[in-house]
Amino acid sequence: MNEKQRAGEEAANYVQNGMIVGLGTGSTVYWTILEIARMVKEGLDIKGIATSTNTEILARENGIPLLSLEEVSSIDLTIDGADELTEDLTLIKGGGGALLREKIIAYHSTHMIVVADSNKFVKKLGTFPLPVEIVPFGYLKTINALKKFGCQTAIRKKDGSFYVTDNGNYIVDCQFGEIDYPSTLHDNLNQVPGVVDNGLFIGYAAKAIIGQESTITYVEK
Amino acid sequence: MNEKQRAGEEAANYVQNGMIVGLGTGSTVYWTILEIARMVKEGLDIKGIATSTNTEILARENGIPLLSLEEVSSIDLTIDGADELTEDLTLIKGGGGALLREKIIAYHSTHMIVVADSNKFVKKLGTFPLPVEIVPFGYLKTINALKKFGCQTAIRKKDGSFYVTDNGNYIVDCQFGEIDYPSTLHDNLNQVPGVVDNGLFIGYAAKAIIGQESTITYVEK
Repeated sequence: MNEKQRAGEEAANYVQNGMIVGLGTGSTVYWTILEIARMVKEGLDIKGIATSTNTEILARENGIPLLSLEEVSSIDLTIDGADELTEDLTLIKGGGGALLREKIIAYHSTHMIVVADSNKFVKKLGTFPLPVEIVPFGYLKTINALKKFGCQTAIRKKDGSFYVTDNGNYIVDCQFGEIDYPSTLHDNLNQVPGVVDNGLFIGYAAKAIIGQESTITYVEK
Repeated sequence: MNEKQRAGEEAANYVQNGMIVGLGTGSTVYWTILEIARMVKEGLDIKGIATSTNTEILARENGIPLLSLEEVSSIDLTIDGADELTEDLTLIKGGGGALLREKIIAYHSTHMIVVADSNKFVKKLGTFPLPVEIVPFGYLKTINALKKFGCQTAIRKKDGSFYVTDNGNYIVDCQFGEIDYPSTLHDNLNQVPGVVDNGLFIGYAAKAIIGQESTITYVEK
Protein backbone atom coordinates (compact mmCIF):
# COMPACT_ATOMS: atom_id res chain seq x y z
CA MET A 1 0.00 0.00 0.00
CA ASN A 2 1.52 3.34 -0.99
CA GLU A 3 1.51 6.49 1.13
CA LYS A 4 -1.39 8.11 -0.69
CA GLN A 5 -3.59 5.07 -0.33
CA ARG A 6 -2.64 4.66 3.34
CA ALA A 7 -3.57 8.28 4.19
CA GLY A 8 -6.60 8.40 1.93
CA GLU A 9 -8.24 5.27 3.26
CA GLU A 10 -7.52 6.18 6.89
CA ALA A 11 -9.42 9.48 6.52
CA ALA A 12 -12.59 7.61 5.57
CA ASN A 13 -12.75 6.33 9.17
CA TYR A 14 -13.77 9.83 10.27
CA VAL A 15 -16.93 9.72 8.17
CA GLN A 16 -19.97 8.91 10.28
CA ASN A 17 -23.50 7.89 9.48
CA GLY A 18 -25.76 10.81 8.51
CA MET A 19 -22.94 13.19 7.58
CA ILE A 20 -22.78 15.62 4.69
CA VAL A 21 -19.22 15.08 3.42
CA GLY A 22 -17.19 17.41 1.21
CA LEU A 23 -15.20 15.29 -1.24
CA GLY A 24 -11.91 16.79 -2.34
CA THR A 25 -10.00 16.29 -5.56
CA GLY A 26 -6.68 14.57 -6.24
CA SER A 27 -4.68 11.38 -6.12
CA THR A 28 -4.79 10.90 -2.34
CA VAL A 29 -8.42 11.74 -1.67
CA TYR A 30 -9.12 9.38 -4.57
CA TRP A 31 -8.51 6.58 -2.10
CA THR A 32 -10.77 8.21 0.47
CA ILE A 33 -13.58 8.33 -2.06
CA LEU A 34 -13.15 4.66 -3.00
CA GLU A 35 -13.14 3.70 0.67
CA ILE A 36 -16.25 5.79 1.41
CA ALA A 37 -17.91 4.14 -1.60
CA ARG A 38 -17.12 0.73 -0.10
CA MET A 39 -18.62 1.83 3.23
CA VAL A 40 -21.74 3.12 1.45
CA LYS A 41 -22.18 -0.27 -0.21
CA GLU A 42 -22.07 -1.77 3.29
CA GLY A 43 -24.83 0.55 4.51
CA LEU A 44 -23.23 3.87 5.46
CA ASP A 45 -25.77 6.64 4.90
CA ILE A 46 -24.03 9.85 3.85
CA LYS A 47 -24.31 12.48 1.12
CA GLY A 48 -21.29 13.83 -0.71
CA ILE A 49 -20.56 17.31 -2.05
CA ALA A 50 -18.03 17.21 -4.89
CA THR A 51 -15.32 19.86 -5.23
CA SER A 52 -14.81 19.21 -8.94
CA THR A 53 -16.28 17.56 -11.97
CA ASN A 54 -13.68 14.79 -11.75
CA THR A 55 -14.66 13.98 -8.19
CA GLU A 56 -18.33 14.12 -9.10
CA ILE A 57 -17.79 11.49 -11.79
CA LEU A 58 -15.65 9.28 -9.53
CA ALA A 59 -18.18 9.44 -6.70
CA ARG A 60 -21.19 8.77 -8.93
CA GLU A 61 -19.51 5.85 -10.68
CA ASN A 62 -18.83 4.30 -7.30
CA GLY A 63 -22.30 4.83 -5.89
CA ILE A 64 -21.83 7.71 -3.45
CA PRO A 65 -25.04 9.78 -3.40
CA LEU A 66 -24.26 13.44 -4.11
CA LEU A 67 -25.95 16.75 -3.39
CA SER A 68 -25.04 20.20 -4.64
CA LEU A 69 -23.63 22.75 -2.21
CA GLU A 70 -26.85 24.76 -2.50
CA GLU A 71 -28.96 21.82 -1.34
CA VAL A 72 -27.37 21.53 2.09
CA SER A 73 -27.38 23.94 5.00
CA SER A 74 -23.85 23.03 6.01
CA ILE A 75 -21.14 20.43 5.48
CA ASP A 76 -20.09 18.29 8.45
CA LEU A 77 -16.68 17.20 7.24
CA THR A 78 -14.57 17.86 4.16
CA ILE A 79 -11.66 15.60 3.26
CA ASP A 80 -9.25 17.02 0.75
CA GLY A 81 -5.64 16.83 -0.35
CA ALA A 82 -2.92 19.49 -0.37
CA ASP A 83 0.11 20.29 -2.50
CA GLU A 84 2.07 21.38 0.55
CA LEU A 85 1.30 21.57 4.25
CA THR A 86 3.17 22.62 7.36
CA GLU A 87 2.91 21.57 10.99
CA ASP A 88 0.48 24.41 11.80
CA LEU A 89 -1.85 23.05 9.11
CA THR A 90 -1.37 25.87 6.66
CA LEU A 91 -1.85 24.50 3.16
CA ILE A 92 -1.07 25.25 -0.43
CA LYS A 93 -3.76 23.88 -2.71
CA GLY A 94 -4.70 24.37 -6.32
CA GLY A 95 -2.25 22.19 -8.21
CA GLY A 96 -5.30 20.49 -9.70
CA GLY A 97 -6.89 23.84 -10.53
CA ALA A 98 -9.94 23.53 -8.24
CA LEU A 99 -8.73 25.82 -5.45
CA LEU A 100 -11.70 28.16 -5.44
CA ARG A 101 -14.40 25.50 -5.27
CA GLU A 102 -12.34 23.61 -2.73
CA LYS A 103 -12.00 26.74 -0.61
CA ILE A 104 -15.69 27.60 -0.84
CA ILE A 105 -16.57 24.09 0.30
CA ALA A 106 -13.96 24.09 3.08
CA TYR A 107 -15.22 27.50 4.25
CA HIS A 108 -18.72 26.13 4.70
CA SER A 109 -17.55 22.93 6.42
CA THR A 110 -17.57 22.40 10.16
CA HIS A 111 -14.41 20.27 9.96
CA MET A 112 -11.70 19.68 7.39
CA ILE A 113 -9.22 16.82 7.29
CA VAL A 114 -6.24 16.99 4.93
CA VAL A 115 -4.76 13.84 3.45
CA ALA A 116 -1.30 13.75 1.90
CA ASP A 117 1.76 11.65 1.27
CA SER A 118 4.89 12.49 3.23
CA ASN A 119 6.46 14.50 0.39
CA LYS A 120 3.83 17.19 0.86
CA PHE A 121 4.70 17.76 4.51
CA VAL A 122 7.25 20.59 4.59
CA LYS A 123 8.95 22.87 7.09
CA LYS A 124 8.09 25.98 5.12
CA LEU A 125 5.65 26.57 2.28
CA GLY A 126 6.70 27.92 -1.09
CA THR A 127 8.67 25.26 -2.96
CA PHE A 128 5.39 24.37 -4.63
CA PRO A 129 4.29 27.36 -6.74
CA LEU A 130 1.27 29.08 -5.18
CA PRO A 131 -1.72 28.96 -7.56
CA VAL A 132 -3.62 32.24 -7.83
CA GLU A 133 -6.96 32.37 -9.65
CA ILE A 134 -7.44 35.59 -11.65
CA VAL A 135 -10.11 36.93 -13.99
CA PRO A 136 -9.18 36.98 -17.69
CA PHE A 137 -9.83 40.74 -18.07
CA GLY A 138 -6.51 42.57 -17.69
CA TYR A 139 -4.65 39.37 -16.85
CA LEU A 140 -1.25 40.67 -17.96
CA LYS A 141 -1.62 43.64 -15.65
CA THR A 142 -2.73 41.39 -12.81
CA ILE A 143 0.28 39.13 -13.37
CA ASN A 144 2.53 42.22 -13.16
CA ALA A 145 0.87 43.10 -9.86
CA LEU A 146 1.53 39.55 -8.60
CA LYS A 147 5.22 39.80 -9.52
CA LYS A 148 5.54 42.72 -7.10
CA PHE A 149 5.01 40.24 -4.26
CA GLY A 150 8.43 38.82 -5.10
CA CYS A 151 7.56 35.69 -7.05
CA GLN A 152 8.21 34.31 -10.49
CA THR A 153 4.94 33.85 -12.34
CA ALA A 154 3.74 31.40 -14.96
CA ILE A 155 0.23 31.43 -16.35
CA ARG A 156 -0.99 27.84 -16.35
CA LYS A 157 -1.47 26.20 -19.73
CA LYS A 158 -3.15 23.06 -20.93
CA ASP A 159 -2.79 21.63 -24.43
CA GLY A 160 -1.17 24.85 -25.62
CA SER A 161 -3.94 27.17 -24.41
CA PHE A 162 -4.50 28.94 -21.11
CA TYR A 163 -5.97 26.63 -18.53
CA VAL A 164 -9.50 27.80 -17.65
CA THR A 165 -10.96 26.99 -14.23
CA ASP A 166 -14.50 25.73 -13.61
CA ASN A 167 -15.29 29.39 -12.87
CA GLY A 168 -14.01 30.67 -16.22
CA ASN A 169 -10.81 32.16 -14.82
CA TYR A 170 -7.05 31.71 -15.31
CA ILE A 171 -4.49 30.33 -12.87
CA VAL A 172 -1.12 31.95 -12.30
CA ASP A 173 1.45 29.73 -10.57
CA CYS A 174 3.57 31.96 -8.34
CA GLN A 175 6.99 30.58 -7.41
CA PHE A 176 8.04 32.15 -4.13
CA GLY A 177 10.71 29.65 -3.06
CA GLU A 178 9.92 30.36 0.58
CA ILE A 179 6.79 31.93 2.01
CA ASP A 180 7.67 33.60 5.31
CA TYR A 181 4.29 35.10 6.21
CA PRO A 182 1.53 33.02 4.60
CA SER A 183 -1.32 34.82 6.34
CA THR A 184 -0.18 38.29 5.28
CA LEU A 185 0.53 37.07 1.77
CA HIS A 186 -2.90 35.43 1.54
CA ASP A 187 -4.74 38.57 2.58
CA ASN A 188 -2.70 40.94 0.43
CA LEU A 189 -3.02 38.81 -2.71
CA ASN A 190 -6.80 38.80 -2.34
CA GLN A 191 -6.83 42.62 -2.27
CA VAL A 192 -5.39 42.86 -5.79
CA PRO A 193 -8.21 43.71 -8.21
CA GLY A 194 -8.47 40.82 -10.66
CA VAL A 195 -7.43 38.19 -8.11
CA VAL A 196 -10.36 35.92 -7.27
CA ASP A 197 -8.58 33.85 -4.62
CA ASN A 198 -5.30 32.10 -3.92
CA GLY A 199 -4.22 28.61 -2.93
CA LEU A 200 -3.25 29.37 0.67
CA PHE A 201 -5.67 27.66 3.06
CA ILE A 202 -5.16 29.03 6.55
CA GLY A 203 -7.33 28.08 9.49
CA TYR A 204 -9.34 25.52 7.57
CA ALA A 205 -7.84 22.12 8.41
CA ALA A 206 -8.10 20.76 11.96
CA LYS A 207 -6.28 17.53 11.24
CA ALA A 208 -3.82 16.15 8.69
CA ILE A 209 -3.36 12.48 7.94
CA ILE A 210 0.01 11.97 6.32
CA GLY A 211 0.93 8.65 4.78
CA GLN A 212 4.45 7.39 5.51
CA GLU A 213 6.20 4.34 4.07
CA SER A 214 4.70 1.98 6.63
CA THR A 215 2.90 4.23 9.14
CA ILE A 216 0.71 7.29 9.37
CA THR A 217 1.55 10.67 10.91
CA TYR A 218 -1.31 12.64 12.41
CA VAL A 219 -1.05 16.39 12.83
CA GLU A 220 -3.74 18.11 14.87
CA LYS A 221 -4.49 21.62 15.94
CA MET B 1 -26.65 72.50 -17.92
CA ASN B 2 -27.39 69.85 -15.30
CA GLU B 3 -25.05 68.78 -12.51
CA LYS B 4 -23.87 65.63 -14.27
CA GLN B 5 -22.99 67.48 -17.45
CA ARG B 6 -21.27 70.25 -15.49
CA ALA B 7 -19.03 67.80 -13.58
CA GLY B 8 -18.49 65.47 -16.52
CA GLU B 9 -17.36 68.14 -18.96
CA GLU B 10 -15.12 69.84 -16.38
CA ALA B 11 -13.16 66.61 -15.84
CA ALA B 12 -12.18 66.53 -19.51
CA ASN B 13 -9.98 69.58 -18.86
CA TYR B 14 -7.56 67.33 -16.99
CA VAL B 15 -6.88 65.24 -20.08
CA GLN B 16 -3.62 66.23 -21.74
CA ASN B 17 -2.07 65.50 -25.08
CA GLY B 18 -0.36 62.10 -25.27
CA MET B 19 -2.22 60.57 -22.33
CA ILE B 20 -3.62 57.06 -21.97
CA VAL B 21 -7.03 57.73 -20.42
CA GLY B 22 -9.26 55.26 -18.58
CA LEU B 23 -12.87 55.94 -19.54
CA GLY B 24 -15.43 55.11 -16.87
CA THR B 25 -19.04 54.12 -17.25
CA GLY B 26 -22.23 55.96 -16.32
CA SER B 27 -24.43 58.99 -16.82
CA THR B 28 -21.90 61.58 -15.59
CA VAL B 29 -18.75 60.30 -17.27
CA TYR B 30 -20.93 60.12 -20.39
CA TRP B 31 -20.44 63.89 -20.62
CA THR B 32 -16.71 63.53 -20.08
CA ILE B 33 -16.49 61.12 -22.98
CA LEU B 34 -18.46 63.42 -25.30
CA GLU B 35 -16.25 66.34 -24.31
CA ILE B 36 -13.05 64.33 -24.84
CA ALA B 37 -14.44 63.28 -28.22
CA ARG B 38 -14.92 66.95 -29.11
CA MET B 39 -11.34 67.69 -28.08
CA VAL B 40 -10.07 64.74 -30.15
CA LYS B 41 -11.85 66.17 -33.19
CA GLU B 42 -9.97 69.41 -32.53
CA GLY B 43 -6.63 67.61 -32.51
CA LEU B 44 -6.12 66.17 -29.02
CA ASP B 45 -4.00 63.04 -29.29
CA ILE B 46 -4.99 60.51 -26.64
CA LYS B 47 -5.90 56.84 -26.41
CA GLY B 48 -8.80 55.60 -24.32
CA ILE B 49 -9.22 52.41 -22.29
CA ALA B 50 -12.90 51.50 -21.85
CA THR B 51 -14.21 50.10 -18.55
CA SER B 52 -17.27 48.51 -20.17
CA THR B 53 -18.80 47.51 -23.46
CA ASN B 54 -21.20 50.45 -23.26
CA THR B 55 -18.34 52.92 -22.90
CA GLU B 56 -16.44 51.21 -25.69
CA ILE B 57 -19.39 51.72 -28.04
CA LEU B 58 -19.91 55.33 -26.97
CA ALA B 59 -16.23 56.18 -27.38
CA ARG B 60 -15.90 54.48 -30.77
CA GLU B 61 -19.05 56.11 -32.14
CA ASN B 62 -17.64 59.47 -31.16
CA GLY B 63 -14.19 58.92 -32.60
CA ILE B 64 -12.04 58.37 -29.52
CA PRO B 65 -9.24 55.92 -30.43
CA LEU B 66 -9.22 52.99 -28.01
CA LEU B 67 -6.66 50.45 -26.85
CA SER B 68 -7.13 47.40 -24.70
CA LEU B 69 -5.71 47.36 -21.18
CA GLU B 70 -3.16 44.77 -22.28
CA GLU B 71 -1.77 47.05 -25.00
CA VAL B 72 -0.59 49.78 -22.62
CA SER B 73 2.07 49.71 -19.95
CA SER B 74 0.10 52.03 -17.68
CA ILE B 75 -2.83 54.43 -17.64
CA ASP B 76 -2.13 58.10 -16.95
CA LEU B 77 -5.56 59.18 -15.80
CA THR B 78 -8.90 57.46 -15.28
CA ILE B 79 -12.11 59.45 -15.05
CA ASP B 80 -15.05 57.57 -13.63
CA GLY B 81 -18.30 58.11 -11.75
CA ALA B 82 -19.39 56.87 -8.33
CA ASP B 83 -22.66 55.88 -6.70
CA GLU B 84 -21.61 57.46 -3.42
CA LEU B 85 -18.51 59.32 -2.28
CA THR B 86 -17.36 60.94 0.93
CA GLU B 87 -15.03 63.82 1.66
CA ASP B 88 -12.04 61.49 2.09
CA LEU B 89 -12.66 60.21 -1.46
CA THR B 90 -13.84 56.78 -0.47
CA LEU B 91 -16.29 55.56 -3.10
CA ILE B 92 -19.05 53.06 -3.64
CA LYS B 93 -19.16 51.95 -7.25
CA GLY B 94 -20.84 49.14 -9.11
CA GLY B 95 -24.40 50.34 -9.55
CA GLY B 96 -23.85 49.84 -13.27
CA GLY B 97 -22.37 46.38 -12.71
CA ALA B 98 -18.84 47.11 -13.97
CA LEU B 99 -17.13 47.43 -10.60
CA LEU B 100 -14.42 44.85 -11.20
CA ARG B 101 -13.25 46.16 -14.56
CA GLU B 102 -13.45 49.70 -13.23
CA LYS B 103 -11.36 48.71 -10.22
CA ILE B 104 -8.77 46.86 -12.30
CA ILE B 105 -8.39 49.92 -14.53
CA ALA B 106 -8.28 52.34 -11.57
CA TYR B 107 -5.66 50.13 -9.89
CA HIS B 108 -3.37 50.41 -12.89
CA SER B 109 -3.91 54.16 -13.29
CA THR B 110 -1.50 56.80 -12.05
CA HIS B 111 -4.38 59.18 -11.27
CA MET B 112 -8.13 58.85 -10.88
CA ILE B 113 -10.69 61.64 -10.96
CA VAL B 114 -14.25 60.97 -9.85
CA VAL B 115 -17.15 62.85 -11.36
CA ALA B 116 -20.58 62.99 -9.74
CA ASP B 117 -23.66 65.06 -9.19
CA SER B 118 -24.22 66.52 -5.73
CA ASN B 119 -26.64 63.77 -4.64
CA LYS B 120 -23.78 61.28 -4.63
CA PHE B 121 -21.70 63.29 -2.16
CA VAL B 122 -22.59 61.96 1.31
CA LYS B 123 -21.39 62.25 4.90
CA LYS B 124 -21.26 58.49 5.35
CA LEU B 125 -21.37 55.65 2.84
CA GLY B 126 -24.00 52.94 2.95
CA THR B 127 -27.35 54.35 1.89
CA PHE B 128 -26.52 53.08 -1.56
CA PRO B 129 -26.35 49.26 -1.41
CA LEU B 130 -22.77 48.04 -1.76
CA PRO B 131 -22.38 45.84 -4.85
CA VAL B 132 -20.34 42.68 -4.29
CA GLU B 133 -19.28 40.52 -7.23
CA ILE B 134 -19.40 36.79 -6.46
CA VAL B 135 -18.79 33.61 -8.45
CA PRO B 136 -21.92 31.61 -9.34
CA PHE B 137 -20.65 28.40 -7.68
CA GLY B 138 -22.12 28.22 -4.18
CA TYR B 139 -23.72 31.64 -4.49
CA LEU B 140 -26.42 30.98 -1.87
CA LYS B 141 -23.73 30.06 0.64
CA THR B 142 -21.71 33.11 -0.26
CA ILE B 143 -24.78 35.33 0.19
CA ASN B 144 -25.27 33.80 3.66
CA ALA B 145 -21.66 34.65 4.45
CA LEU B 146 -22.26 38.24 3.30
CA LYS B 147 -25.31 38.57 5.57
CA LYS B 148 -23.05 37.95 8.55
CA PHE B 149 -21.48 41.36 7.90
CA GLY B 150 -24.77 42.89 9.01
CA CYS B 151 -26.41 43.79 5.71
CA GLN B 152 -29.58 42.93 3.86
CA THR B 153 -28.75 41.24 0.60
CA ALA B 154 -30.41 41.14 -2.80
CA ILE B 155 -28.98 39.28 -5.75
CA ARG B 156 -29.18 41.59 -8.74
CA LYS B 157 -31.61 40.63 -11.49
CA LYS B 158 -32.19 41.77 -15.02
CA ASP B 159 -35.21 40.84 -17.10
CA GLY B 160 -36.20 38.20 -14.55
CA SER B 161 -32.84 36.38 -14.53
CA PHE B 162 -29.72 36.90 -12.46
CA TYR B 163 -27.62 39.75 -13.77
CA VAL B 164 -24.31 38.40 -15.08
CA THR B 165 -21.23 40.63 -15.12
CA ASP B 166 -18.77 40.94 -18.00
CA ASN B 167 -16.69 38.43 -16.02
CA GLY B 168 -19.47 35.82 -15.81
CA ASN B 169 -20.25 36.47 -12.15
CA TYR B 170 -23.26 37.59 -10.07
CA ILE B 171 -23.72 40.82 -8.16
CA VAL B 172 -25.16 40.93 -4.65
CA ASP B 173 -26.35 44.37 -3.52
CA CYS B 174 -25.66 44.66 0.21
CA GLN B 175 -27.72 47.22 2.08
CA PHE B 176 -25.78 48.34 5.12
CA GLY B 177 -27.55 51.62 5.89
CA GLU B 178 -24.33 53.05 7.31
CA ILE B 179 -20.80 51.82 6.73
CA ASP B 180 -18.68 52.81 9.73
CA TYR B 181 -15.36 51.27 8.71
CA PRO B 182 -15.17 51.06 4.92
CA SER B 183 -11.55 49.93 4.82
CA THR B 184 -12.05 47.03 7.22
CA LEU B 185 -15.26 46.03 5.48
CA HIS B 186 -13.57 46.14 2.09
CA ASP B 187 -10.71 43.90 3.17
CA ASN B 188 -12.89 41.43 5.07
CA LEU B 189 -15.39 41.04 2.24
CA ASN B 190 -12.58 40.17 -0.17
CA GLN B 191 -11.44 37.35 2.16
CA VAL B 192 -14.73 35.48 1.78
CA PRO B 193 -14.20 32.59 -0.65
CA GLY B 194 -16.53 33.19 -3.58
CA VAL B 195 -16.26 36.99 -3.39
CA VAL B 196 -14.35 38.33 -6.39
CA ASP B 197 -14.35 41.99 -5.31
CA ASN B 198 -16.61 44.65 -3.86
CA GLY B 199 -17.65 48.16 -4.80
CA LEU B 200 -15.65 50.03 -2.17
CA PHE B 201 -12.87 52.05 -3.83
CA ILE B 202 -10.45 53.26 -1.19
CA GLY B 203 -7.26 55.13 -1.98
CA TYR B 204 -7.94 55.29 -5.70
CA ALA B 205 -9.34 58.76 -6.36
CA ALA B 206 -7.13 61.82 -5.86
CA LYS B 207 -9.79 64.33 -6.87
CA ALA B 208 -13.57 64.55 -7.11
CA ILE B 209 -15.42 66.96 -9.33
CA ILE B 210 -18.96 67.34 -8.04
CA GLY B 211 -21.57 69.17 -10.07
CA GLN B 212 -23.82 71.55 -8.12
CA GLU B 213 -26.83 73.47 -9.37
CA SER B 214 -24.75 76.33 -10.72
CA THR B 215 -21.19 75.64 -9.54
CA ILE B 216 -18.68 72.87 -9.09
CA THR B 217 -17.24 71.52 -5.85
CA TYR B 218 -13.72 70.12 -5.95
CA VAL B 219 -12.55 67.64 -3.34
CA GLU B 220 -8.87 66.79 -3.27
CA LYS B 221 -6.65 64.60 -1.20
